Amino acid sequence: MRASDLIEKKKQGGELTEQEIDFLIRGYVKGEIPDYQMSAWAMAVYFRGMTERETGWLTMAMARSGEMLDLSFIKGCKADKHSTGGVGDKTTLVIGPIVASLGVKVAKMSGRGLGHTGGTLDKLESIPGFRTALTDEEFYRIVQEVGICIAGQTKALVPADQMLYALRDVTATVDSLPLIASSIMSKKLACGSDAILLDVKTGSGAFMKTEGEARELAERMVKIGKMAGKKMAALITDMDVPLGRAIGNALEVREAIDTLKGEGPEDFTQICLELAANMLFLAEKGSLDQCRKLAEEAVASGRALDIFARMVEAQGGDARVAEDPALLPQASESMEVKAGEDGFVTAMDAQGCGTAAMVLGAGREKKEDPVQMDAGILLKKKTGDQVKQGDTLAVLYTSQKERLKEGARLLLASYRIGPAPAPDRPHIFARIG
Amino acid sequence: MRASDLIEKKKQGGELTEQEIDFLIRGYVKGEIPDYQMSAWAMAVYFRGMTERETGWLTMAMARSGEMLDLSFIKGCKADKHSTGGVGDKTTLVIGPIVASLGVKVAKMSGRGLGHTGGTLDKLESIPGFRTALTDEEFYRIVQEVGICIAGQTKALVPADQMLYALRDVTATVDSLPLIASSIMSKKLACGSDAILLDVKTGSGAFMKTEGEARELAERMVKIGKMAGKKMAALITDMDVPLGRAIGNALEVREAIDTLKGEGPEDFTQICLELAANMLFLAEKGSLDQCRKLAEEAVASGRALDIFARMVEAQGGDARVAEDPALLPQASESMEVKAGEDGFVTAMDAQGCGTAAMVLGAGREKKEDPVQMDAGILLKKKTGDQVKQGDTLAVLYTSQKERLKEGARLLLASYRIGPAPAPDRPHIFARIG
Repeated sequence: MRASDLIEKKKQGGELTEQEIDFLIRGYVKGEIPDYQMSAWAMAVYFRGMTERETGWLTMAMARSGEMLDLSFIKGCKADKHSTGGVGDKTTLVIGPIVASLGVKVAKMSGRGLGHTGGTLDKLESIPGFRTALTDEEFYRIVQEVGICIAGQTKALVPADQMLYALRDVTATVDSLPLIASSIMSKKLACGSDAILLDVKTGSGAFMKTEGEARELAERMVKIGKMAGKKMAALITDMDVPLGRAIGNALEVREAIDTLKGEGPEDFTQICLELAANMLFLAEKGSLDQCRKLAEEAVASGRALDIFARMVEAQGGDARVAEDPALLPQASESMEVKAGEDGFVTAMDAQGCGTAAMVLGAGREKKEDPVQMDAGILLKKKTGDQVKQGDTLAVLYTSQKERLKEGARLLLASYRIGPAPAPDRPHIFARIG
Repeated sequence: MRASDLIEKKKQGGELTEQEIDFLIRGYVKGEIPDYQMSAWAMAVYFRGMTERETGWLTMAMARSGEMLDLSFIKGCKADKHSTGGVGDKTTLVIGPIVASLGVKVAKMSGRGLGHTGGTLDKLESIPGFRTALTDEEFYRIVQEVGICIAGQTKALVPADQMLYALRDVTATVDSLPLIASSIMSKKLACGSDAILLDVKTGSGAFMKTEGEARELAERMVKIGKMAGKKMAALITDMDVPLGRAIGNALEVREAIDTLKGEGPEDFTQICLELAANMLFLAEKGSLDQCRKLAEEAVASGRALDIFARMVEAQGGDARVAEDPALLPQASESMEVKAGEDGFVTAMDAQGCGTAAMVLGAGREKKEDPVQMDAGILLKKKTGDQVKQGDTLAVLYTSQKERLKEGARLLLASYRIGPAPAPDRPHIFARIG
């Protein structure tokens, strides 16, 4: 078998066999197949696509390229979730504890945020003392004892995806549906859970701008997971406006805690409860309706918040934040951004809000950049709200005063204010299972 | 400027600017742009193509990537030719001397044969003593004194093409029309002639299997040359059967000498005279009809053969071969391949004949393989000929007896014999100028 023949086959629109895909991925990880052949293959995939089987084989070959977590010694159903990411997305911090409080184990390995705002790990690290770099033993022990652990992905996991993603990033081959689907799912498969819920976001702040694209990606990933014997479902959820009202690490942890107390914003609460219900459903805790009730009760009873606090404690963090979020880092500077006219917020550029938060210090422009835990934005008005001139649209937070002006400019530019309210947009578009 | 943005632009079907193409090629040659970006770009070019301007800019950027021959100190028109290659193609050995004998300087740098049979350099090196590795000074002096010199391409010429071709070869990106056209033309432009004639072959033994593909490539290359200020024309010629009757290095030199004496095979003679006439026409030696007559006279008068002998002598070879081809290497073994049935030769697989010659030792399977100067095939019957069972179709030559059996099997498999003669096929399909 020669890599160049496999590139040629794909270039002609052919379907590679499972053996051929294995040959490519194994060879690439071993250094026997060079970057320049993989990038040519990736570009051919961009133009020709991959069949469902092929995408599944690729995903499994990548998942097998490094260590795979073995959770079989932990009793019961282990559930995982993945979000394609967006601005203000702190769902994991809420639904993980809800689900774990109902006896479904959540063993979650998460990545760093490379986008506008921090990732789940960054958010959690805003809790004083919280550790995400755990040994495998610590990770397994916390999952077993607390029911949930959220840790950083170890390097040994899915090296093929790490290599291929870095290569795609510099060869204009990121935006290929089968490559996106296999990248995400390879990490999920390697993490060893039995049930996987996908939260595929769509809208101005999401990678998938249209519902159609999001649906295609969701269907592809659900099929891959089923091919690998997993219980799978996906929700298509809205990311046309930032999720909830908080953007930025400590601000988002605070909003997650509020939501676990039943005091979160309406859109975020609804999405969290539906995601949690779907995870419980995949873990066979009852019908979807029963699972919705279970999720609501977990919040109402305080059990979910309790699990959150126990997870924080087990991972070295100050668990008192669950009761007293004022213990989270607080920015020394703030600034109100005000509406310049009367009307309705007709649209928000969610990505623009994310960029504003990044400029304030909440996210990374480059991989090496540090993240400011206290920086971010609290939105006071969102799409659909009526505003009067001088009303506060949002409050910006940072500890670097010089960043406020540019942050305010970017945030203001993200708001569209018009004479009539925009039509309602659902928070959840579809369920694919 | 970032390479990944230029790959993205091409992926989306955009046209790169002259500056962008320059950035890619310069960066690649300097080692600043890695192979994996160039291969992704090449694959995007395969799918999206390049505009005519873009192909021209690419060609010129590659031509400028290394040394360029400066022939301006040699008086008069300097003419070059290029063949896209085929089986039994020894036209350069005939038309170079014809054209040079009429005062048009031929400064030709040639490549090694990588295909089934040797290249022009291999053929010439079958002449005892003939040297193709010349210094620039020797090359210029021989062009000036004899009127023609055929030497090996020096490494300093067109490094961008050498790098890119090697990369395309292992990334399934060879068969892209603009990349083929720019690769060929960059070498021609770097060689500094004023007039360039292209011989684009089509048929079973050619890279371009159909006349349409050949025409497209010819048109693209003619336009590139004109963009660079060259006098350009192309002939589309037949390569559905091997050219002439000889395949293999010394055998082909002998056929070229026969042709320079006016005793060559009909198809080969016709193609050589038409190519020579077109080179003379580009060099403004008269109308095409006048140039045809000049070419015929150069052969009839013996002046072309005389120039051939002088070139051989100037390049260190035994010039007596021009009068006595028996001085060329002769194989110790031979074998007649006979027809198994009565009928007509309705088709020949020219590439199959080339493979048979390679197996006998005439060509290279790998770059490093040596070439047997005396090995090859003399065809006694070609497409259109009537045969009777037991007639000799061809005679195989080699000095390694064990190769005869496989050579015979392959050659026989290349003949199609049927009950009725095939329709005539022209030797020359079209002129593009």
